[in-house]
Amino acid sequence: MTISVKVKSCIERASWIRKMFEEGALLRRIHGEQNVFDFTLGNPSVEPPEAFRRELLQLAQHPVPGMHRYMNNAGYEETRSAVAEILSEGSLQSVEAHHVVMTCGAGGALNVVLKTVLNPGEEVIILTPFFVEYKFYVDNHGGVTKEVWTDRENFQLDLEAIEAAIGPNTRAVIINSPNNPTGVIYPQEDLQALGELLARKERELQRTIFVISDEPYARIVYDGQSVPSIFSCVKNSVIVTSHSKDLALPGERIGYLAANPAMAECDEFIEGAIFCNRVLGFVNAPALAQRLVAKLQKERVDIEEYREKRDLLYDHLTGLGFQMVKPGGAFYLFPRSPLPDDLEFVRMAQKQNILLVPGTGFGAPGFFRIAYCIDAEIIRRSLPAWEQVAKEVGL
Amino acid sequence: MTISVKVKSCIERASWIRKMFEEGALLRRIHGEQNVFDFTLGNPSVEPPEAFRRELLQLAQHPVPGMHRYMNNAGYEETRSAVAEILSEGSLQSVEAHHVVMTCGAGGALNVVLKTVLNPGEEVIILTPFFVEYKFYVDNHGGVTKEVWTDRENFQLDLEAIEAAIGPNTRAVIINSPNNPTGVIYPQEDLQALGELLARKERELQRTIFVISDEPYARIVYDGQSVPSIFSCVKNSVIVTSHSKDLALPGERIGYLAANPAMAECDEFIEGAIFCNRVLGFVNAPALAQRLVAKLQKERVDIEEYREKRDLLYDHLTGLGFQMVKPGGAFYLFPRSPLPDDLEFVRMAQKQNILLVPGTGFGAPGFFRIAYCIDAEIIRRSLPAWEQVAKEVGL
Repeated sequence: MTISVKVKSCIERASWIRKMFEEGALLRRIHGEQNVFDFTLGNPSVEPPEAFRRELLQLAQHPVPGMHRYMNNAGYEETRSAVAEILSEGSLQSVEAHHVVMTCGAGGALNVVLKTVLNPGEEVIILTPFFVEYKFYVDNHGGVTKEVWTDRENFQLDLEAIEAAIGPNTRAVIINSPNNPTGVIYPQEDLQALGELLARKERELQRTIFVISDEPYARIVYDGQSVPSIFSCVKNSVIVTSHSKDLALPGERIGYLAANPAMAECDEFIEGAIFCNRVLGFVNAPALAQRLVAKLQKERVDIEEYREKRDLLYDHLTGLGFQMVKPGGAFYLFPRSPLPDDLEFVRMAQKQNILLVPGTGFGAPGFFRIAYCIDAEIIRRSLPAWEQVAKEVGL
Repeated sequence: MTISVKVKSCIERASWIRKMFEEGALLRRIHGEQNVFDFTLGNPSVEPPEAFRRELLQLAQHPVPGMHRYMNNAGYEETRSAVAEILSEGSLQSVEAHHVVMTCGAGGALNVVLKTVLNPGEEVIILTPFFVEYKFYVDNHGGVTKEVWTDRENFQLDLEAIEAAIGPNTRAVIINSPNNPTGVIYPQEDLQALGELLARKERELQRTIFVISDEPYARIVYDGQSVPSIFSCVKNSVIVTSHSKDLALPGERIGYLAANPAMAECDEFIEGAIFCNRVLGFVNAPALAQRLVAKLQKERVDIEEYREKRDLLYDHLTGLGFQMVKPGGAFYLFPRSPLPDDLEFVRMAQKQNILLVPGTGFGAPGFFRIAYCIDAEIIRRSLPAWEQVAKEVGL
């Protein structure tokens, strides 16, 4: 055996996902790109805001000496300040540059935070349905995930279930709002209640329990909603996020982590995070992207476009009898599977050239995920195929 | 305690390095930027080749739709092909795109490879003097480093010592040629002997032992020398590298790993590496940089400039009585400390505003490192200060 036993077994277990992708690719070859309705990937089809292109052109035309060199592992002061300013705006806390570490996306930020805080065998609570990478991220750093269901009707926090899951080894709770895969936003009062619960548990267990708030969709919200600042609700909280979705830059790997200024031993936490950002091999977030996003903290992609897609699909599918929560943010729908076996349903939809991810992939059998961050035209063309699927399952 | 016990202790142990940097910053404030001779950082002061600026401008003026989206976790096919073509040129092996995974720099590549191959407690041999990050990288993935000295006279491979260190838990040997901190290049015959040694040990121990060849300086070589292809010398070998030095892009985090096509179960290794690149949170190498370096595989920074700096310092210092190997590549000198205690020597040099890294930082007490990738003007201005130091230590 050449590769590690664990990595080998992960690859083998993931083979069904690969098989699904391969079948999707095959369908595209057979039926043509435009006739396969691929709702599987959270890879925005939109382009970055015009301001991004403008800033990139400006920088390419007038390069700044040294702009591709190493900088402080935490990132450019200018970028960290710009991020801190935006975070302060929505929060009771005054966030400053030294509370922020620029990272290679939210995936990088999560790994950095987990390595910073986890001792071997400590537990991280993740909320079902969950982004499947969380399990790998926690395992990377010797932690153990504990899965706690959200409310199965509305996917909101189940505080009793979270309380029951907290024990002497709990180090963190990862939350993700607006949520992938459900699209729901956690309201301020629930986050405040979570903060109170954790403060009580911290006293009881005499240990710090972090909320790691994964927020890449925080600026993709609809109907005048907004995402409450976790810093106003939970003392020992860390934001991890990226510009993958709000500026449509997922390939550029640009994000950050920010520590609640109210956190106990905040300076030590940040120092640890900078060290981990370095030794995990990220070293620093990409220099060019850092320089660009420093100027784009108030920009975002066209949210109306996403809202229209959400409404189009939500209305059509609920009209056909599918059951789902109407999401307030992100670009996912997470309907109940009309068949008890979500994998069977996904295979059935595939026969109509509709590609979906089964809820099982998020620890939530009995549901399926639709990523609607694709061309509106493809969504429209998919509508009759959805009707066919609804008919076949007897809706 | 909020952060992990291990991270806290790493930060505390690293405090002397931080103290050194803080003292350097203080000196700059007191004496002015131009009067402090900072030889501590491998952060090239040169700018990327003109072709890089041209390609960046071209791309900014004519953006390609979707160019900031996620791509395959392994990177763009076009970039992987361009890398494979260059690697094939110098090798007996025909390297193809599917042997290459684009990464966030060599630091990212090393972490990906180590996670891919290491089972808990397995050993990785590193060669003293070593790049200190290797120890953190191996520890990140549950491995144990075993330090083996190179020949203390010329810093070349000590094959007997390596053989003696190989045991039933050995999984890999990391080599770095041209070397940081010594600048030496390992000749073809030594690498071939290493390959033979490992093949014999692999048969004996019935396990795969990788050579992980860390090569960011492979294109920074002098006097008509070249770096032999590890693929022609060691069957189970992996190249990890970046364009941080050869294209002067360290801040952009663009590099790659490549597996020897002759490797046992090469496809499985690459599949594992792609998986690890994803779950470690890198996800993919930055999209923009990938697109640019695809076109720049034959470009490099001006090597003559580096050679002149090497010669200037080498001639001056050896003239003053310092003893060192004349390096064939990279941009470091690694002289013997004229005082038995290299930390004491570094402190003494600091009094002349010369900032150095003690050999202790590379596991090699009794030496010190000079990074000469700084402005030639600063090097020239440092020459009298070196004379003063030589006088003080009685050279």
